[in-house]
Amino acid sequence: VDVESAQTPALILNLDALERNLRLMASETTMAGIRLRPHSKTHKSPWVAARQIQLGAVGICTAKVGEAEVMVKAGISDVLVTTEVVPQNIARALSLATMATITLVVDDSRTATEVGRQATAQGLEIPVLVDVNVGQNRTGTEPGQAAVDLAMLIADTPGLRFAGLQGYEGHLQHRFALEDRRAAALACYQQLADTQLKLREAGLESPWITTAGTGTYKFALEHGVASELQPGSYVVMDSQYAKVERTPFENALFVMSGVVSTNRPNLLIVDAGYKSISTDDGNPSVRNEPTATYQPAGDEYGRIAGLSGTHKPGDRVWLVPSHCDTTINLHDSYLLVRDDGRIEGELPIAARGKSS
Amino acid sequence: VDVESAQTPALILNLDALERNLRLMASETTMAGIRLRPHSKTHKSPWVAARQIQLGAVGICTAKVGEAEVMVKAGISDVLVTTEVVPQNIARALSLATMATITLVVDDSRTATEVGRQATAQGLEIPVLVDVNVGQNRTGTEPGQAAVDLAMLIADTPGLRFAGLQGYEGHLQHRFALEDRRAAALACYQQLADTQLKLREAGLESPWITTAGTGTYKFALEHGVASELQPGSYVVMDSQYAKVERTPFENALFVMSGVVSTNRPNLLIVDAGYKSISTDDGNPSVRNEPTATYQPAGDEYGRIAGLSGTHKPGDRVWLVPSHCDTTINLHDSYLLVRDDGRIEGELPIAARGKSS
Repeated sequence: VDVESAQTPALILNLDALERNLRLMASETTMAGIRLRPHSKTHKSPWVAARQIQLGAVGICTAKVGEAEVMVKAGISDVLVTTEVVPQNIARALSLATMATITLVVDDSRTATEVGRQATAQGLEIPVLVDVNVGQNRTGTEPGQAAVDLAMLIADTPGLRFAGLQGYEGHLQHRFALEDRRAAALACYQQLADTQLKLREAGLESPWITTAGTGTYKFALEHGVASELQPGSYVVMDSQYAKVERTPFENALFVMSGVVSTNRPNLLIVDAGYKSISTDDGNPSVRNEPTATYQPAGDEYGRIAGLSGTHKPGDRVWLVPSHCDTTINLHDSYLLVRDDGRIEGELPIAARGKSS
Repeated sequence: VDVESAQTPALILNLDALERNLRLMASETTMAGIRLRPHSKTHKSPWVAARQIQLGAVGICTAKVGEAEVMVKAGISDVLVTTEVVPQNIARALSLATMATITLVVDDSRTATEVGRQATAQGLEIPVLVDVNVGQNRTGTEPGQAAVDLAMLIADTPGLRFAGLQGYEGHLQHRFALEDRRAAALACYQQLADTQLKLREAGLESPWITTAGTGTYKFALEHGVASELQPGSYVVMDSQYAKVERTPFENALFVMSGVVSTNRPNLLIVDAGYKSISTDDGNPSVRNEPTATYQPAGDEYGRIAGLSGTHKPGDRVWLVPSHCDTTINLHDSYLLVRDDGRIEGELPIAARGKSS
């Protein structure tokens, strides 16, 4: 069945392009001898996570405990939760630790102590990474002594095992120019290397250093301090990542919208608005139509200008999301297609909306 | 159980405030003798829809066929789909017409003809409204002769029954100043009245005129051409609607976030980002803290500045969504609370993500 027969709007995942992206990242990390732990916050699909592991990934990342619940119950056996768990959600995280290896990150001694207390009460020892602020100025301890102090506390807390460092340079992923991004990323990794050295001086080994995203993974491979990469968006890409110089992945994700109305001069109204495609990182693009523009027109509609040809209600307009993660999070399933446009089936986005 | 014990982030619905809002709108429309058909695109809950009908609503609106599927299968017997159905989705809409009264809107003769063809093939007669552009310049035929022409075509098409006019003045809902909004809204309703008169001259009665939202319903009551109102957001409100002068409903919707990290000077990092609260109509507010601000910090985090007091990880920060519809559409369920903060249960957002 051809995809153009499907209901609109639909979230389309090109399985062939996905597979090429998965293989390319797996191959680059394997050749460099660095572990790959892809971030499932982008795709939110246990099936994609399992495919990543089949291709060599050591496990996956999730952003939230709720995503980890979905992944573990689907059979994923090694999960790093990359955002600091809030105290009220710790019990849910620990309840997964009898089914899978669950690693947590912390940036606060009070949270670390509480994880240790609850883990001890359950007879668990939880591997914990210190989250280091490498410049995003969001979460994380400062690199250097602050990170060492927290690592020492973790090492001394029953129920916890100090496992290493996380330092995510999220603020660099969309610096489009190669050299600018490279220099800034290498400086981040050097902060992790300096902190690792300080830890060693304090008597703590930190063999596990996890970092990097789709825009920076190359530089993490180049620098060498990272033992593990955690990119997410490379699986499907989006129009913002497409602008990031030398990011060798292809777009695998689209929202196929349908023309609703042609009554306004020089505009098409399509059936994809805020509820079908995200705009937090700018407006989506129109596939293969560089002069066409999409603007949201409320929750249910978009306005398309500058599209070539004449159109009638029902015509399909393919949109390229500007931000893959938040667009995927709006949908309950992917419509799977092949390169030739043949529909392959549907795939549930099982961790969609699991934000707690 | 107190709501502060819940996992975060959580979408909170105050059932007492909801009930007061539902009763107030029901009472105002009943006293005016005008039918109420609330828009369920906001709440996406069959339970809330049923409560609206118990309080006197004649049925509900949905934006999409997928929402209508959820509502009809939950027992709602009268549904108006307020966005023009795209041709590829018509069959799904018609398949509901044996279970409930399904009314469609059209603004294009080709779509109307196709609905008629498919309805006839199934032995159905579908009530159809002409969607009129009253100034939003999105969907809709122009008022006057264009609307009359389409109404005549509908009246002459087997399988269709011309039922009336829809004219939604969505562009006016957030004009904050009362008199400015009132004058513009009355002009919209006059366009519907003029079109109704032109229809009568052409031999077509149009007893069903549906229009208005939470920001304009008062003026529709005042003008009198509308036979039916279709407000949505009044059920829970949001921080944008709260700015609309003389909108007598109370906020019933919150995102309760949790403090993740306190390591940045003068900032709190909370666990609600783009995936938990929408920003398409500006940033959320912080409840009861007029000098505090929320800014998104990626998919999973927000940055809170200016909050009074000292804070630690796990502390709750209550956010007031800027846009209720798109925030609700991110969540799978409401956490129901009472005025006193007691948790009453969970309510699935069954039509969430049903965007096709």
